[in-house]
Order: sequence, then C-alpha cells, then structure tokens
Amino acid sequence: MWQPDRRPGRPVYRQIAERFERLIRQGELTAGSMLPAERKLASELGVNRSTVIQAYEELRASGLVVRTVGSGTRVAGGSASPLHPADWRTYLDAGTMLPNSDAMRRIRTGLRKEAGLVDFASGELSEALFPSETIRDIFAGQPYDGPLGYDDPQGYGPFREALAAFLSHRLRIATSASSLLITSGSQQSLFLIMQCLLRKGDAVAVETPSYCFSLPLLQSAGLRVLPLPVGREGIDPDDVERLHQKHRLKMLFLNPNFQNPTGSVLPAERRARLLAIAEERGIPIVEDDPFSLTAFDGRPPLPLKAEDPSGRILYVGSLSKIAASGLRVGWLAGPQEIVSRLADARQQMDFGMSVIPQWLAAKLIEGEAFDRQIGRLRRQLSERLDELRASLDFHLPGLVSFTPPDGGLNLWVKWLGEGDPRLMRTLERALSAGVAYVPGQVFGAEEASMRLCYARPEAGQIEPGIVRLKGVLAGGE
Amino acid sequence: MWQPDRRPGRPVYRQIAERFERLIRQGELTAGSMLPAERKLASELGVNRSTVIQAYEELRASGLVVRTVGSGTRVAGGSASPLHPADWRTYLDAGTMLPNSDAMRRIRTGLRKEAGLVDFASGELSEALFPSETIRDIFAGQPYDGPLGYDDPQGYGPFREALAAFLSHRLRIATSASSLLITSGSQQSLFLIMQCLLRKGDAVAVETPSYCFSLPLLQSAGLRVLPLPVGREGIDPDDVERLHQKHRLKMLFLNPNFQNPTGSVLPAERRARLLAIAEERGIPIVEDDPFSLTAFDGRPPLPLKAEDPSGRILYVGSLSKIAASGLRVGWLAGPQEIVSRLADARQQMDFGMSVIPQWLAAKLIEGEAFDRQIGRLRRQLSERLDELRASLDFHLPGLVSFTPPDGGLNLWVKWLGEGDPRLMRTLERALSAGVAYVPGQVFGAEEASMRLCYARPEAGQIEPGIVRLKGVLAGGE
Repeated sequence: MWQPDRRPGRPVYRQIAERFERLIRQGELTAGSMLPAERKLASELGVNRSTVIQAYEELRASGLVVRTVGSGTRVAGGSASPLHPADWRTYLDAGTMLPNSDAMRRIRTGLRKEAGLVDFASGELSEALFPSETIRDIFAGQPYDGPLGYDDPQGYGPFREALAAFLSHRLRIATSASSLLITSGSQQSLFLIMQCLLRKGDAVAVETPSYCFSLPLLQSAGLRVLPLPVGREGIDPDDVERLHQKHRLKMLFLNPNFQNPTGSVLPAERRARLLAIAEERGIPIVEDDPFSLTAFDGRPPLPLKAEDPSGRILYVGSLSKIAASGLRVGWLAGPQEIVSRLADARQQMDFGMSVIPQWLAAKLIEGEAFDRQIGRLRRQLSERLDELRASLDFHLPGLVSFTPPDGGLNLWVKWLGEGDPRLMRTLERALSAGVAYVPGQVFGAEEASMRLCYARPEAGQIEPGIVRLKGVLAGGE
Repeated sequence: MWQPDRRPGRPVYRQIAERFERLIRQGELTAGSMLPAERKLASELGVNRSTVIQAYEELRASGLVVRTVGSGTRVAGGSASPLHPADWRTYLDAGTMLPNSDAMRRIRTGLRKEAGLVDFASGELSEALFPSETIRDIFAGQPYDGPLGYDDPQGYGPFREALAAFLSHRLRIATSASSLLITSGSQQSLFLIMQCLLRKGDAVAVETPSYCFSLPLLQSAGLRVLPLPVGREGIDPDDVERLHQKHRLKMLFLNPNFQNPTGSVLPAERRARLLAIAEERGIPIVEDDPFSLTAFDGRPPLPLKAEDPSGRILYVGSLSKIAASGLRVGWLAGPQEIVSRLADARQQMDFGMSVIPQWLAAKLIEGEAFDRQIGRLRRQLSERLDELRASLDFHLPGLVSFTPPDGGLNLWVKWLGEGDPRLMRTLERALSAGVAYVPGQVFGAEEASMRLCYARPEAGQIEPGIVRLKGVLAGGE
C-alpha cells in the first residue's frame, strides 16, 4: 500500500493530504465516500493519529471533505471539485441485477467492522473447521502441475473425474466427468440455472423459509416465486401438485437434506411422492445439497439425485460447507446437453474458473485426508450444536423453541417471548451488543424467528454470544 | 474415473455396457449424445478396443445407441428408453445469455480434438511463456496463509494493495485498494459493466474490428452497438462525436494500446481529443488494457486511465496476457461507488473469487520475478512476431498485407489474393489441414482478413503453420 516518503523536507501530513486530494479530484473517491478511520489509517501508515487528523483538517480547509464527530470524514458534494467528475448516478440504477438486501448488507458491514463480534449470522465454517493443514501440505508436498492456460469451461478434467468418483462413493450419485460442470460455489450454479434456463415471469416453487430469499438472485432473474411451506418434515408434495395446477411450475428449488435454514430432512415417503409428481407433471428439480455429508452420525441421507431415474434433477453441491468456502469450488451434475449450455454461458461471464483451486480440490476430496476432515467436522459441529442448545435452554428458557437438526450448520429458532421483538429491528442493537444473527424475515419467514449458525463462532464463543443476545432480546426495548 | 472390476466372474464388456445403460436410462446421457470414441475409452480403461466394441454392440442390440461407421456411437432417440427422460429442450432456448458464435465453438472443438494443430487462433500465451517455475516456487517456498472463508467480494485485500502499487509503478495509474475490484479475468469485468451499468437498448460505441464481437456478451446484454472504425492509428475521435450526436452514446468500449485484433496504438493527439469529447459530452469510457506491458521495447504506452482527470474511465486489466490466463485474475479500477455496486452484483453471480489465485497473484506481481517474466515475454513475443512476418513474406508473397505491431499478441492480416477466399469458409479446411486462425468476420471486419496470434504456437511451430495455411489458402478451392 501507499506509504509516505519519510525523508526530511516534506511533512508527512501534507503528503497524506495531497494523496487524498488527488484521489478526490480524479474521481476515485466520489462525493459522500468515507475516508479511512483516523486510527486505522494511522496504524496502517505507521504514523501518529494526530498526523492523520492534521491531514484531514487540511482537506476540510480546502472544502474537499466534511468531518462529523462520531461518523468520520466524507468527501464533500460535487461543488468542491473544480473539474466535473463523471456523473455515474444514472448508471447505478441500470442493469438487471438487483442489489443485496439491506439486512444482509448491514450484517456484512457489521461483521467487517466490529472485532470480537460473535457471528451466528454467516452460514459458513469457522477457521478452525477448515482443512487448513491439509491444504498447506498439498501445496508444499507436490509441485503445482495443473495447466496455466484457458481450460475447459466445464472445469478441470482431473477434478471432474475425481468428483464423479467422490459423488458415487459418498452419495451414491451415478454421474460422469462429462455430466459435471464446476462452478464458483453453488451460487454460480444457481445463477446460471436461473439466468440461462428460465425466462422472466416463469413460475418456480421455492421452499419457504429458504436461504434463497436472502439473495436477490430470484428477483434479479424476474421469476415468479411461489412458496412451498417447510415444516419439520420438509415440504409437502401435495403443495407442489396444487401449485403446479394453478401456476404451471417451470422448476422446483429444493434443499431436501438439512434444509437451510430449518434443518429439516425430507422423509422417504415424501421423496417418493415428490419424484412421482415431478415425473408425471414433467417438472425439473434443482436440488441444492451443501450439507448431506455433515450428518452427525456419519450416515448422510441420500440426495434425491441418487434416485433420479429420468435425468430430471439438476444437482448442485460444493465444498463450501464441508471444507472451505473460500476455495469457491462448487458443481452441478445434470444431463450433458444442459451442462454444455451452461458451460457455454459461463464462458461469457468469466471465461471459466481458475484451475488452481480445482487442482487443489481434486487432491482434497481423494482418500483419507477427506475422511479425517469430515470426521472432525461432524464431531465438532455436533459439539457446537450441543453448546448452543444448552445455552439457549439456560439463558432464554421458555422464550425460544427449536428442533435440533441431525446435520448442517444452522439452528432455526422461533421466538416465543411476549411482545413481538421484531427481530429485524433488534438486529441493529444486536450488532452493537456484539452478536449477529439473521432474522427469519430475510428467509421469507412470517413469524418471529432467526437463523443461528453454530459452525461459524469458534467453540467457547457460543455461550457468551447467547448471553449478549439475551441482553438485546430479553432486556426490553 | 470409473474402472471395471477386474476380478474373474463378470466380463468387463458387460460392466462397460451396464455402466452406459445406467447413464442413458438416468438421463445423464440424453438422446443424440456421443459415447466416447472406442480407441479413447479403451486406452482410458486399459482394455482392448474389441472389449469396448463388444460393449457398444450390446448397447446397440438393446436399442439404446445408434452406431454409424466413421461418426461413432450416439444415444438413440427418446423412444428407446422405457422411462420418459425429462424434456429439457424448451429450457435450452430460454434465458438472456446467447450461445457463443458457431465459428468460435468450431475452433474450440477443433483445438480440443486435433493434436498437433498449429494454433494461431487462441489469443493467449503458450505454455513456454507462462511463469510456471515462479508459480511452483511460490507455492513450494511459502506455506499458503491466505484466508479460506468467504472473503471481501471486492477481492483479497493484500492483492488489491499490491495491485494498486503495481498499477501506479508500471502504468502510472493512481488508484487505491478500495477503488479496485478483482474479477475472474477481464471477461468478468466486462460482463458486470454490461449487465449492471447499462440497460437494454443503450447505445454503446465499440471499435470495429474488435475482439468484443467474438463474444456474444454485447448482444446478450441487448445493447445497441455502434461501430467505431479502427485504422492504423486506432479510432478517430470525430467518429465518437458524430455517433454521439446521432445516438447519444452511453458508453465507449476501447482498447487503445495494441488493440485486439489490429495491434494499433492510439496516438497522443487523438487521446487528448477523445478525452476532451468524453469530458464535454459526459460519456464514460471502458478501457480494456490487457497488452500495454508487452510493449517490445519495454516502454509501455500509457493507458488513458493514467490521465483520467474526472473519474470517467473504468479501467479493465488482467494477468491473462502477461502471465497466465488460467489464473483467471483480472481487475477493474474505477470510482468507489461503481466498484461497490459491481462487487455487490458479482456476489450474486459467484459469491466472489477464490482467494488462492489472488494470494498467488499478489506474490507474482511483486518485485523482480515479475520483471524477469515481462522481460522474457517481450523478447520472445518479438522473436515470434519476426518469425511470423518472415514466414508470411516468404510463403505468401503478395497475397497478404499487415502492419506489424509494437506489442501485444496478435497480427492482423489482410488477404490480397485474387478471388475472395472467404476465410470463414476455408476455416474448416484449415482445421483439417492442422492450422487454426480466426476469420476477420468474427471480429466484425468486412474485408477478407484474419487474426494470427503469434504468442500461442511455440517457437518453431510458426513456419510449419504458415506452410499449412498456404496449402489451404493459396492452393485453390
């Protein structure tokens, strides 16, 4: 990063001020943008905070920034600039991709800013659960020998081979390398399906509550979203039949195993009925399956795809919830013609995925190292869930209800306390109190509820987090 | 990959037949899909070719496949299956992302299939030009210590810091980590700009010829594309003025340095006029700049962005043409509000990029290793261009004309031979003769022309490639 020149002759505060002046005049920092916090910038540059204050004061004196106690320093409105910075405002409203929801953006900002926050909000593993050592060993143990040029847009061949074996061995899914598309997490698979196989206005049925609603994906694609209520036993296949008769469903989006956020698993009898209806009505199913292998007892419920007799299921999975989300390695298994169409479209988006994480993933899912990872993960997730249950029972007795899942990362909690605590509104106070959750409303839930991810806080953080939550939720408004 | 069970008792040909039967009945292999070539499958499974033939014959006997001499074995039409495989056909026509052009798909298939083909078509570096050793050394020399969880959707912080320093040092672009968005190659930057900052029907001006036309990106976004003719000195700023008056341009897409495919560099006087017009008319510019650092003389022409006084330029770059395309590391530098909007949208597409290639890229662009890479690259590119020029002069004298560029990877060649050889139609014969080029029409060119990339064939392949090309082009139809 930029560093001031420390030789005598040019005061450091002037150099800092000049640097920001340049960025503002060039339009890199536009009207309203925040300058870095004084303390943070001082520590990054290795200077006294007073030096930064002096620089910011100088910028204020020239009318380039506005300083407000408590909320920091911002770039002043357009008039301060002698040039006419490009007016980008009209461009910001264009395009078809809607911005993320306010709640999710607020949570993300909170997580970035507040150190020490107990994070029940991010639906991912904590650092301690990633296979960090195995990854270091793989890179250190064998020279990188994957390709460095543009690769097959369907994904790195040896990884697809290894993955076909992995899916067959661990989840009894019969597939082949040529029926697999490697994507940047399951997110990209879902994006491609919605953008390339559906049209604006198409009716699709989505579990409700569902993490799908936390993303603007469905709305960005302009789909008509019909809710499939999820109970303890997942969705009711009769609802699918009913919705189809009324709306002619073009697709079902389901997460049958350890559903996010409820944790429910669709029972065998419902699966059979669901598949029969899909077969009879000709409705394709997108099965999102990030969690099966986390089953605490080591016996994962089989995915629907394991019994897909007619190529009706697009199966979407990833390493994000069982190894590490930062690898951004996901996949889609489906009929070859669909896979080629999506691979062709993804070439337009990003020209295919970096081979390096795929090279790593091929080694990560092979053999005993992965058994160890999954074994450790299952034990620790189950322990953390126990800690969370005990903390909720002890600190919020009679105020919450939940059904503990047998796998997955999330506990779905209903709020029973008197007076609707409007979990969406209390979120702001929770973030200030050092604890984050996702309000049920974000997932499309109607009643007061929230998703608590027990995989993200490290062991030992869970109880303190619930104590903070109690302070916010049970402490009165 | 799947392997037959070699213990006695179950004939291997039966196992192979059963495996394909399962894939066909499950709809993984749909009507019309090709089964692997006999010889290829035999070698992959380590069995005799006759075993594969026996298996395929059995599948044919059950009506599951159709075998045609010379064109291989395909899955039979739907009627052969006792189940009703999902009908995906209607889904394949939906969505807004158009498929890639036939010519480009044909070239890619050709490149995958024909071993020994001399590839003047792919616009990328050859294996020998990638910094393979440096990459191996980086991974071997220091344990991976980047994050493994979801990271900032704008990109890995330390890489953005390193990149800001790199852009300032090497190309005099003043930017900061917070004004940079890391993308999967420049392709993803362009996709995000077109999908998020523009609306259907918006008028944009694009250099013609331009590699942009080889991608369906512009049409997928529904933009009204207006051509800016490119001559030896790049585009004429007066054309921008003229187009704007008539169509009210919303954006300009330019590649001012070593333009792809023509190799032209926009001269200083035209730059100044262009920027003045963009300033006066309020037209933002997307500057795609993959090649500047390849300047053979080591003195790259400065990007427009180096003199962007009012934040009007979205600058797009990548490591693809100067290090390795398979890393998929690209970037966009622009005003922070635009960068955040695009980062937010990209979260919907793929939830951000894998950190590992970014961790690697941060180390790759720092210090002397990069100087060595660029030095070697410049020398070798310049040598290969010399070889290409000499070969063209010797083997196709009077039949081609070209202006050799001072950097970049591509030579733009006009065909002067009598009788229009319709370079689009001769492509098929060229692929059979073992040489690939991209016909000018793919780039939107009107006259007979083609792009020859001299970076992709290894040294020593260039002359034999041109000899083959002569056989096709000058040998009469």
